[in-house]
Amino acid sequence: MLENTTPPSTSHPLDYIFHPRSIAVVGISEDLPKLWIRRLYLDSLVQSQFPGQIYLVNPRGGEMDGFPLYRTLTDIPGPIDHVVVAIPAVHTPALLEECLAKRVKVVHVFSSGYAETGEPDRIELQNRLVEIARRGSMRIIGPNCLGIYYPKGKIGLSPDFTMEAGSIGYLCQSGGNVDFAVRHATSRGLRFSKVVSYGNASDINECDLLDYFAWDPETKVIAAYIEGIADGRRFFSTLKKAAAAKPVVVFKGGYTAGGLRAAASHTGSLAGSDEVWSGLLRQAGVIRVYSVEEMVDMLMALLRVTPPKGINVCVLGNGGGASVMATDELERAGLRMAPMPEAIRERMKEFIDLANSMLRNPVDVSPLATEGFPLLRNMGQRRPIDVIRDYADTALGGGWGRLLRMLNEWPNLDLVVFQHGFDISPMPIDDFIVIGSVGPLLLAARQCQMPKALVLHSMGNDQAWRSSENLRGLAAEFGLPLFLSMRGAARAIRTLIEYNRAYPERLAGIRDQAPRA
Amino acid sequence: MLENTTPPSTSHPLDYIFHPRSIAVVGISEDLPKLWIRRLYLDSLVQSQFPGQIYLVNPRGGEMDGFPLYRTLTDIPGPIDHVVVAIPAVHTPALLEECLAKRVKVVHVFSSGYAETGEPDRIELQNRLVEIARRGSMRIIGPNCLGIYYPKGKIGLSPDFTMEAGSIGYLCQSGGNVDFAVRHATSRGLRFSKVVSYGNASDINECDLLDYFAWDPETKVIAAYIEGIADGRRFFSTLKKAAAAKPVVVFKGGYTAGGLRAAASHTGSLAGSDEVWSGLLRQAGVIRVYSVEEMVDMLMALLRVTPPKGINVCVLGNGGGASVMATDELERAGLRMAPMPEAIRERMKEFIDLANSMLRNPVDVSPLATEGFPLLRNMGQRRPIDVIRDYADTALGGGWGRLLRMLNEWPNLDLVVFQHGFDISPMPIDDFIVIGSVGPLLLAARQCQMPKALVLHSMGNDQAWRSSENLRGLAAEFGLPLFLSMRGAARAIRTLIEYNRAYPERLAGIRDQAPRA
Repeated sequence: MLENTTPPSTSHPLDYIFHPRSIAVVGISEDLPKLWIRRLYLDSLVQSQFPGQIYLVNPRGGEMDGFPLYRTLTDIPGPIDHVVVAIPAVHTPALLEECLAKRVKVVHVFSSGYAETGEPDRIELQNRLVEIARRGSMRIIGPNCLGIYYPKGKIGLSPDFTMEAGSIGYLCQSGGNVDFAVRHATSRGLRFSKVVSYGNASDINECDLLDYFAWDPETKVIAAYIEGIADGRRFFSTLKKAAAAKPVVVFKGGYTAGGLRAAASHTGSLAGSDEVWSGLLRQAGVIRVYSVEEMVDMLMALLRVTPPKGINVCVLGNGGGASVMATDELERAGLRMAPMPEAIRERMKEFIDLANSMLRNPVDVSPLATEGFPLLRNMGQRRPIDVIRDYADTALGGGWGRLLRMLNEWPNLDLVVFQHGFDISPMPIDDFIVIGSVGPLLLAARQCQMPKALVLHSMGNDQAWRSSENLRGLAAEFGLPLFLSMRGAARAIRTLIEYNRAYPERLAGIRDQAPRA
Repeated sequence: MLENTTPPSTSHPLDYIFHPRSIAVVGISEDLPKLWIRRLYLDSLVQSQFPGQIYLVNPRGGEMDGFPLYRTLTDIPGPIDHVVVAIPAVHTPALLEECLAKRVKVVHVFSSGYAETGEPDRIELQNRLVEIARRGSMRIIGPNCLGIYYPKGKIGLSPDFTMEAGSIGYLCQSGGNVDFAVRHATSRGLRFSKVVSYGNASDINECDLLDYFAWDPETKVIAAYIEGIADGRRFFSTLKKAAAAKPVVVFKGGYTAGGLRAAASHTGSLAGSDEVWSGLLRQAGVIRVYSVEEMVDMLMALLRVTPPKGINVCVLGNGGGASVMATDELERAGLRMAPMPEAIRERMKEFIDLANSMLRNPVDVSPLATEGFPLLRNMGQRRPIDVIRDYADTALGGGWGRLLRMLNEWPNLDLVVFQHGFDISPMPIDDFIVIGSVGPLLLAARQCQMPKALVLHSMGNDQAWRSSENLRGLAAEFGLPLFLSMRGAARAIRTLIEYNRAYPERLAGIRDQAPRA
């Protein structure tokens, strides 16, 4: 066992798959079409400084990046715990025989061309792999998948994946949806405990992984992208058990008639009708989502939003139209704009000009948009974003400070949503303007002590996206509950409120485990 | 009249507001909080080389960017057609008296602090402006708005707005939603004929503008963001008339109870219940949308997608999970994945490897992803995107060429959707990889002769967005029907099909007017 990944005292039968002492990559090559393999399974391990042995196998021999290329797996001198298989499907049975002889513990078959094709000979090929593995105690991840991402154990599957560990356990039948979800969630400040892309689920399947994550002490919330299952009865009982232990968010891929057929053709899954799935997920107390974005929004709400006691919201942000749209999105999702007490409105009028603002709820805080400029005036050679960071823990003065105090005095207010749309800026935005005007809003969102969310939307165009990149990054760094659309925030938070009412005990322990802030 | 904006022979009573010979900006200043005004109403006119006179007014005198600063409007020597008012609301009645004396034709009141505040004295202030204007034949745009964007007449309202003209006429009660919609639509290759941000609608209102756009020969499609109306009866009859003339897309802001209140507080609008609006829009034959993104998606569908005869779709793109999700989104919106004829599948197997792909429908074209690399091999110092552009009109060979031919032979296929998600790329993407692998898909989308759509989704993280920027730009440049989400594309195209069935005559003339491709 590696020092830094000591498993808990009571173990789980699947835990060892995350703790290989050595990894061999078979089928690595310098050809452009296979550049992938090298980037995914060599570069990421080297970059993360994976502390175990790394072996590379390619029949032509030689070396790559200072590693010898063994001609066969058998040629590797030491023991091998984990093998990544990236050779054409037809050659994989022979390789698995070698793995068996080498007493390999886990084989991750990256290659595709098996049951997902629907061709009888390919289904048979997949069955052969399983048959070989079961002659020993070897386990198979896949085929047709990306394998394991375990940041704490320095096992990546793309060189851009962070090695900072978090508390989301993610099982995913699609490789692409690992990449999408991990990159998207990471850019918003969330981190994963362990991720497994398990493809065709020939051996290790969704039930094994759900059972594992339900146990795993490093995992506080479970996310799953599932296209189909092999054993409905076992799945339901495993899912129910997992959902009773920790919040579980499921994105069922292939929920339409065509989607069902597509899922069958992607991972060879027997998917089951959507009615069956709906009933099953509801009964198990699972949160269902319909896209990767929704899944990440829900994880953000679970991990970063203090569950509001009720549905009364106040929205603070820039722009009149944006405020109207924010209101529609929030109320459409079942939240309610809290009527602003007249006393609060009267006090706001003392420091926010009525012109150019809306002083009801939503509050258009545009007149406060210049409060950041004094902070930036003496910044010298530093980047505006670094100046804002300096003020992270300095209590805000001025209008923003007063506003934050007034929120605390607002009776029956359950949630504060801070919003800014870079798209609606009346002029082309640059770093100075963006950070000067939106920086204080971000600081206010950080310092607000109530249940809260921060929505930074910027779909307008490439320039808006780029100019707002640093602010999104700082929000992520601060560990703020960051959403990229009001619709997404509203839906996830409404679900959070319902979930917290139904299962308060499941949320009790998880929020303090968020990696930062 | 300016040479390049000659109005049609039969005129409309509102047409002259788009053809000022001179524009005066009152309240321009060098203070940071007023930097806006300068950027919006001076920089954009200078940059676009507005061919009329530009006058600036600021009581302290002096000059700015080579323009003299007149102390008062009265000091301006020549006649003034159009005045932009950006001074505090309380001073505006006096200014409007000056305008009246100067025989100004149109006053655009940028300032806010009027009826939208809900304060009786502010409502009265707004009424005074109207009363002054009506003593002459002066018209008011606003208050509380951004005014006119008319690319053909070189009138911008932000220096980053293009001066290329298109065929979308857009009336918008929110300033922010002009910025958002114009930037977003422009980045996807759409262009506007004329845009009016009209705010509180004290004088020129939604009815005037709808009536104008219905007449305007430069406008083929009408888009509207409306928070509220003053006269329901006139609105309904005007809307019905406009919708009978051209496709009309309406985003009603404030459709929830809280949204209604917010709209009242934003533009002082009497909004009316959502039930009333629903009935009214449906009866008028208007397409209703619920966000700016949906509005732009709908405009894209109307202007760039040949209306499919039926709902049978084929999806070609990269990634298994992405293909499953695409299918779900399309079928959820009421489209149907066309079953692939067995003969076509058999022929596809000749040139697309079964492994690493799904050869039913959706088609995972991953194995063709290397077809772009040969194009890039000898690119020398050129940018990859420029190499792809060179092949725009060269008929594709290889797998893509065969695929395109097979689509033509597929019976009862109504629509082809090309999709790529940069988020699901298994490795961090760079220009070379992105363009090598996705470039041919973009060329195929361009060369496909069937009703089609191109969906380039990239919400994963900042890197994915940046790396895909050039490809989105090229798709826009090619005039392709470019969507940024499958959900958005599916919904808009489904609506297009229904609209085309209900009102085929309304779509007949508009598509050939798209600015490019």
